[in-house]
Amino acid sequence: MKNAQGRKSVANGFDFSHGLEGLDADEAAVVRRRQKVLGTMGPLFYNRPLHVVSGSGVHLRGADGADYLDCYNNVACVGHSNPHVRQAVADQLGRQNTHSRYLQDEVLDYAERLLATFPGAIDHVAFTNSGSESNDLALRMARVATGHMGVVVTQGAYHGITSLVSSVSPSFGTGLPLAPFLATVRVDDALHDADGSGDGTGDGADGAAASDAAADAVWAVLGPRFNQAFDALEHGGYGVSCVLIDEVMSSDGILPGARGWIARLADAVHARGGLLISDEVQAGFGRMGGVMWGFQRHGAEADIVTMGKPMGNGIPVGGVAYRHPIGDAFAACTRYFNTFGGNPVSMRAAGAVLDEIERLGLVAHARDMGDRLARDLSEILEGHERFGGLRHAGLFLGIDVTDGADDGGAAQPDGAAARAIVNALRDDEHVLISAAGPGDAVLKVRPPLVFDDSDADRLLEAVRHICERGLFDR
Amino acid sequence: MKNAQGRKSVANGFDFSHGLEGLDADEAAVVRRRQKVLGTMGPLFYNRPLHVVSGSGVHLRGADGADYLDCYNNVACVGHSNPHVRQAVADQLGRQNTHSRYLQDEVLDYAERLLATFPGAIDHVAFTNSGSESNDLALRMARVATGHMGVVVTQGAYHGITSLVSSVSPSFGTGLPLAPFLATVRVDDALHDADGSGDGTGDGADGAAASDAAADAVWAVLGPRFNQAFDALEHGGYGVSCVLIDEVMSSDGILPGARGWIARLADAVHARGGLLISDEVQAGFGRMGGVMWGFQRHGAEADIVTMGKPMGNGIPVGGVAYRHPIGDAFAACTRYFNTFGGNPVSMRAAGAVLDEIERLGLVAHARDMGDRLARDLSEILEGHERFGGLRHAGLFLGIDVTDGADDGGAAQPDGAAARAIVNALRDDEHVLISAAGPGDAVLKVRPPLVFDDSDADRLLEAVRHICERGLFDR
Repeated sequence: MKNAQGRKSVANGFDFSHGLEGLDADEAAVVRRRQKVLGTMGPLFYNRPLHVVSGSGVHLRGADGADYLDCYNNVACVGHSNPHVRQAVADQLGRQNTHSRYLQDEVLDYAERLLATFPGAIDHVAFTNSGSESNDLALRMARVATGHMGVVVTQGAYHGITSLVSSVSPSFGTGLPLAPFLATVRVDDALHDADGSGDGTGDGADGAAASDAAADAVWAVLGPRFNQAFDALEHGGYGVSCVLIDEVMSSDGILPGARGWIARLADAVHARGGLLISDEVQAGFGRMGGVMWGFQRHGAEADIVTMGKPMGNGIPVGGVAYRHPIGDAFAACTRYFNTFGGNPVSMRAAGAVLDEIERLGLVAHARDMGDRLARDLSEILEGHERFGGLRHAGLFLGIDVTDGADDGGAAQPDGAAARAIVNALRDDEHVLISAAGPGDAVLKVRPPLVFDDSDADRLLEAVRHICERGLFDR
Repeated sequence: MKNAQGRKSVANGFDFSHGLEGLDADEAAVVRRRQKVLGTMGPLFYNRPLHVVSGSGVHLRGADGADYLDCYNNVACVGHSNPHVRQAVADQLGRQNTHSRYLQDEVLDYAERLLATFPGAIDHVAFTNSGSESNDLALRMARVATGHMGVVVTQGAYHGITSLVSSVSPSFGTGLPLAPFLATVRVDDALHDADGSGDGTGDGADGAAASDAAADAVWAVLGPRFNQAFDALEHGGYGVSCVLIDEVMSSDGILPGARGWIARLADAVHARGGLLISDEVQAGFGRMGGVMWGFQRHGAEADIVTMGKPMGNGIPVGGVAYRHPIGDAFAACTRYFNTFGGNPVSMRAAGAVLDEIERLGLVAHARDMGDRLARDLSEILEGHERFGGLRHAGLFLGIDVTDGADDGGAAQPDGAAARAIVNALRDDEHVLISAAGPGDAVLKVRPPLVFDDSDADRLLEAVRHICERGLFDR
């Protein structure tokens, strides 16, 4: 939904203009208190905003005393209040926490470990404090390394909130102008029917062949569009510095897509002298299942990889991994020093996250649990009129909610119906999800990676209830 | 110093091109390890980079076992490894650490407390993860609120590292182009002789009159320059969205300036329909002595105030406080949500910093200790040929190092001599300072606020040694 000035509202946002009716006394009091200091710049989720007071694993406790099943938060990837992360941070806060212009072991310990998770060409890293800072830096590096300005993103992309990064994020709407050096490509139609189930790396010969055919089919549609975008930037005098791709295409509608097509995109942008920047702020750290990084699902060669959200389980930390000639070109031209970037506390938090991912086998678990949820949710929802399909890769699932048209026309996305489902799950089932995509009509299910079988049982039971109440029917 | 591509090096930076001779075995090994993963994008301090392993209060311990007196780090404002900050963070990491789209008490507790430190017109706040994110957001808000694009900064300004903010930071040199909508104003000559000693708020009648006269004298020089900058932006079609001012002008050479002149600047930018953005990333949280915020030294009306570095004592957190109509205009046009911004852990860290500032009386202490250091350092240095003067406000001191010319010409800034002093203090006295300003010829002394009399004694003794060795003479 857009306002008169072209601003697109936050998906699943609380509408302040509706007043505080329907909220309980505690909720209303906290919203009022909040409006006085955070004002209109502080968005909230749900028709009844949730007052969170504590959390553990995949559970959040509300001020109402209820236990909410968290099927939304990717930041707390190894679980809310993870004790191992807590211990690492507390330990380092008792040692020191200065900056990386001194020699320190913590940043090097983590950098070496992080880089070991990448293919060899990605051999250096710079640290930031957020995914936005990471994408901002990556775009600047791509400009310097290529000598070009132009940026290509998907039509519904979100890449963050700095001035530069928001200007290449069409998902904000048209309230502020997009960058003149931006070209956008529609992808939702071509990627809509592909699901990313299973392991991105080990399909065996048959699977690989099927995957190649699916990637070819995607690229037959998207190849000409990307090349048209490149042409437009070249004709505009900007040239092509990069394609910046969210590997799960969350704001486009959760479109992980057929494995392999990103490799074809990488070849295409390289042919124009540009770079592939893989935005792994959402997809990275095992979320896609079976692979640590989203671009690995495709066997693609990324030039720059950006990271954020789950990296420190909530401690602010981000990163930009890159092929070293790109950084050398940048450093020869300007300097980059980020005061908090790579600080020992953030590095220890990030290291503890890697510990937990390894100890609990979360990369494989995200694949297996994601596949289970996709299968079981599809089984429950199949046949309900408003169920428009399900896509997923690992523990990132998107469920289309439609108007369920049965008049022979194609069913259309129905954001209001999706909103009703999201709020019924929150209010009545104490299950937290959100919405994304065009018209906010795609249910977004993206729990902490430590989501287990009993959590899945609870989610599925809640969805059954929602179906029984008719919320997935017309 | 600039390289062939116009890049200005980091002040007091380690020169990688000189190789690793002169470093001990541990330092050389860590530098080598570092080059493999952080490469040329990871700047280091000193001719012999310091390997830091732990810290406490104003002390950092090196891998060499030596105790270094920290007279440089403003981030750890309430002391390295502060136990109260540590406890607050550890406690919150055991509760929950989600984001501000849920209702949470932690962000409100802190926001209310922070805003109570500002004059009434500054009544709202948005949280970020760094000073760079804060300045980036502030510039965007000023654009929307005023409908203008133009930005005015000082000639040597540094405001951070996002694409937008670095494009209005001339201190990076000319390796990357500055923003076309930027105008710069030289201030060092007009502010060079003013010192900011004493309390910014309570001079009594005589002091106020002296201050007014000094501010008038500054404004007689700078007023026409700022108005010329405004004219240039208006003629260029950009209009004036804001003046963005680092209240201590660190990168311009540490120029706190006569109290009151910023109030005249505020009036001048308001007359053009622009805003005054007070960049308090360096000056804020009591650093200037006697006042919480740098703009309060001047009795000025800031429209937006940006914060970062010391706010969480090293936990990444920043903020943008503003007059609420500015935020309302922005929110009507686009949305802003910062995933980590205002997270409960960062808020608890920031709250613990305020606790310590209050408990230890650090705002008054910064004034008193700063005045003591300024007086005692001047006394030691007076009469030495290379001593070109000392300026300070609170615990932020700048000491000019010159070529000590005695041939009747004015002495010139001497960055090489400043560098020799900085490195002698590090190597032989185990005292950490750095350099800033044109040619990096201004010694930067900016210790944690908990710096006490015995710490001061040690610093002064070290400076006496340096003088005895002739480093302040030709």
